[in-house]
Amino acid sequence: MVERGAVELFEHGFVRLDEAMASDLSVVNAARVSFAKRKEEMDDSDAFLVRFLMRERHGTPFEHNAFRFHIRCPIFVAREWFRHRIGSFNEESARYHQLEPAFYVPSPEDVRTQVGMPGAYTFETVGSEAAERVRETFAAHYEETYARYEQLLECGLAKELARSVLPMGIFTQFYWTVNVRALMNFLSLRAHETAQLEIRRYAEALETFFAKQMPITYKAFVANERTAP
Amino acid sequence: MVERGAVELFEHGFVRLDEAMASDLSVVNAARVSFAKRKEEMDDSDAFLVRFLMRERHGTPFEHNAFRFHIRCPIFVAREWFRHRIGSFNEESARYHQLEPAFYVPSPEDVRTQVGMPGAYTFETVGSEAAERVRETFAAHYEETYARYEQLLECGLAKELARSVLPMGIFTQFYWTVNVRALMNFLSLRAHETAQLEIRRYAEALETFFAKQMPITYKAFVANERTAP
Amino acid sequence: MVERGAVELFEHGFVRLDEAMASDLSVVNAARVSFAKRKEEMDDSDAFLVRFLMRERHGTPFEHNAFRFHIRCPIFVAREWFRHRIGSFNEESARYHQLEPAFYVPSPEDVRTQVGMPGAYTFETVGSEAAERVRETFAAHYEETYARYEQLLECGLAKELARSVLPMGIFTQFYWTVNVRALMNFLSLRAHETAQLEIRRYAEALETFFAKQMPITYKAFVANERTAP
Amino acid sequence: MVERGAVELFEHGFVRLDEAMASDLSVVNAARVSFAKRKEEMDDSDAFLVRFLMRERHGTPFEHNAFRFHIRCPIFVAREWFRHRIGSFNEESARYHQLEPAFYVPSPEDVRTQVGMPGAYTFETVGSEAAERVRETFAAHYEETYARYEQLLECGLAKELARSVLPMGIFTQFYWTVNVRALMNFLSLRAHETAQLEIRRYAEALETFFAKQMPITYKAFVANERTAP
Repeated sequence: MVERGAVELFEHGFVRLDEAMASDLSVVNAARVSFAKRKEEMDDSDAFLVRFLMRERHGTPFEHNAFRFHIRCPIFVAREWFRHRIGSFNEESARYHQLEPAFYVPSPEDVRTQVGMPGAYTFETVGSEAAERVRETFAAHYEETYARYEQLLECGLAKELARSVLPMGIFTQFYWTVNVRALMNFLSLRAHETAQLEIRRYAEALETFFAKQMPITYKAFVANERTAP
Repeated sequence: MVERGAVELFEHGFVRLDEAMASDLSVVNAARVSFAKRKEEMDDSDAFLVRFLMRERHGTPFEHNAFRFHIRCPIFVAREWFRHRIGSFNEESARYHQLEPAFYVPSPEDVRTQVGMPGAYTFETVGSEAAERVRETFAAHYEETYARYEQLLECGLAKELARSVLPMGIFTQFYWTVNVRALMNFLSLRAHETAQLEIRRYAEALETFFAKQMPITYKAFVANERTAP
Repeated sequence: MVERGAVELFEHGFVRLDEAMASDLSVVNAARVSFAKRKEEMDDSDAFLVRFLMRERHGTPFEHNAFRFHIRCPIFVAREWFRHRIGSFNEESARYHQLEPAFYVPSPEDVRTQVGMPGAYTFETVGSEAAERVRETFAAHYEETYARYEQLLECGLAKELARSVLPMGIFTQFYWTVNVRALMNFLSLRAHETAQLEIRRYAEALETFFAKQMPITYKAFVANERTAP
Repeated sequence: MVERGAVELFEHGFVRLDEAMASDLSVVNAARVSFAKRKEEMDDSDAFLVRFLMRERHGTPFEHNAFRFHIRCPIFVAREWFRHRIGSFNEESARYHQLEPAFYVPSPEDVRTQVGMPGAYTFETVGSEAAERVRETFAAHYEETYARYEQLLECGLAKELARSVLPMGIFTQFYWTVNVRALMNFLSLRAHETAQLEIRRYAEALETFFAKQMPITYKAFVANERTAP
């Protein structure tokens, strides 16, 4: 299932850049159209301009580009992802298609407990034995659940109903097409320390593609404390 | 949990109109501003105008209103709902809050099998005995799953991780604020015969509030074969 | 033309609140649904919550409300306004309707010159004589232009073509329906010192309605340096 | 000013495709992810699928692409264009930059009168002499207006104020980045016989780029009576 060139995550997940139309030059030309100017190539003054736009929150020049990502992640991650409305989604269907038995089991160092007060929670890893018990519970649960799902399908129950028993930890996949302004908004929230660890890992994978495709914009974003313009 | 004035659905669900700012007059005045006109009350020519706007797909006059709904539904319904990007959502969180043991078990007449070919599926109810077996399987599964969820929480596992085992059939709740243009788009897709039965029931409940609040617009929508402008 | 209860601006302009469904309580309840809680009335802890949401950039709870404004402003102001995509517009048409001869002439103290460097412009008023000359030039230009517009219409030229001669300084009117999150984004940009003076005056008028309707949210917005969440 | 490879319109206008990430295959793969399938190349069954999606109004698979257009048009055309909210704009500024003296004068065969009743207007060309008189009036008006604009700038009036005298017929330019679903919505309204002739010409130019880039999607769109899914 995992594609060449994709960043692999967890056991069954990935972020794959399917295609991009994204360059720092597009930011600069979108900004310079204000003065009826256009360039064929970037120079140093343009890097300065990108930083200026980022800092002063001139967001629109960052919208003239597109990344099409192909993503596979647990449904509880996808549910957070689909809250982002500026962008396009198409997802694997469980109405007309049987989902594969691919489930999220946290690696031992990611099994964690929540501490602290409302509004200021943090997380701590549990000991390795406790982690192992959790992982076994998850694995057993998933196995029993999937067996039940298959049994319901064998009895002829409609897939759209049988999916009711499937857990949030099952993997789904989708295409996500997004411009870098909306991507930076996603990263500002989902690569943030308050975001759930699992979606943060996805956000970090997205960042590697962003950094490679639009290096000057990416640097300006990081310099701006990952605040989206 | 169910509110006064709400439409109840299934065992634990509801659609409750929390507040609305929605009148047929707002449609008419938004359209008449084209000609710098405004009225304090509707008359017959206005009903004609609403039908004209609907039929000719002049969509924007239908946007100057708002319905705030409070909804409780299974997560597999919510996942279809949240695909609608024109509108606002806030949902119950399973990161910092333990979900209640409220689950979707189809009533006997809603237990169904899928027949037909890709692109043209239909559904048929199964016999009452088969239906009962499905309902018992669901109920047993939910009970075991919730026990496992509670056990994981008792062991100190973070709620955001423990939710991985929860099924799509568990109930969530959310606020949804939407204008009637986006609502009609929702209804054109989700009250349609090709939509999944469960979300159709929710769409039908939404329609009763729409019909009461904006009767002329609603009639024009129905007359237009429930096609959104 | 100017409505009761509207804020009047310049000679022919206004901001009128047509209707609102907007309370601080809607913000609080949208946030508290995360924990499956709902209140009938605000208390002190809720004001704290609103400030927390604003500061931590939790934007979605601020979307469950709606303001429907009726606005009359010069077209050069409307052109900046219509760049805001989250919200709904219906505007007076110059295709099928003759625009009235209402034009923007800056008051003497608003006649200004631009000084400084690209990226850091500021403005200075000119002397009263120079201001008067500008105002006379504007007035004469508008008069001649409108006479030409009428003459073209009398010759039978289609209104949609005749409008080509009309200046940016002519007044238009429109309805704008917007939630307070998008309104705050508008204010953060258009009530800002770098915004053009004319649209700033409109932004300031909008703020008075916002402050009256959602006082706690408004205070939190101001305390947050008018940065939209 | 006019670019190589651009479609020229009127005397000073153009539609230039700056860059595209747009293929029929992207539509097909976005749809097939429902069934966890992906292809490297289109075959005949895919053309069938595209037609099915278009006809059945499955709109989202048409969003995973992007066209970045560079456009120059009169401001009265741009004002209609900027009403389309799904897409990204950056435009020439008249706040900090002096606009060039490029104006729209209709060619003789485009000078027209409006006939018919509200809701059902049509247009008829006027005779060649009347057309010539209109063209002369436009040309004279533009010349006098631009002289006044320059005179105001020479007196030191801020550009953002001086623009008040500029007519709707002056040319502006902008970048517009849009996916083909939003583009089809634009075309369904702006290439329609009820749209103003000037923006229809722009819509027709956009269509040539769409047809070349996504031929199968384009054919399905035309076969579907140019109704956007």
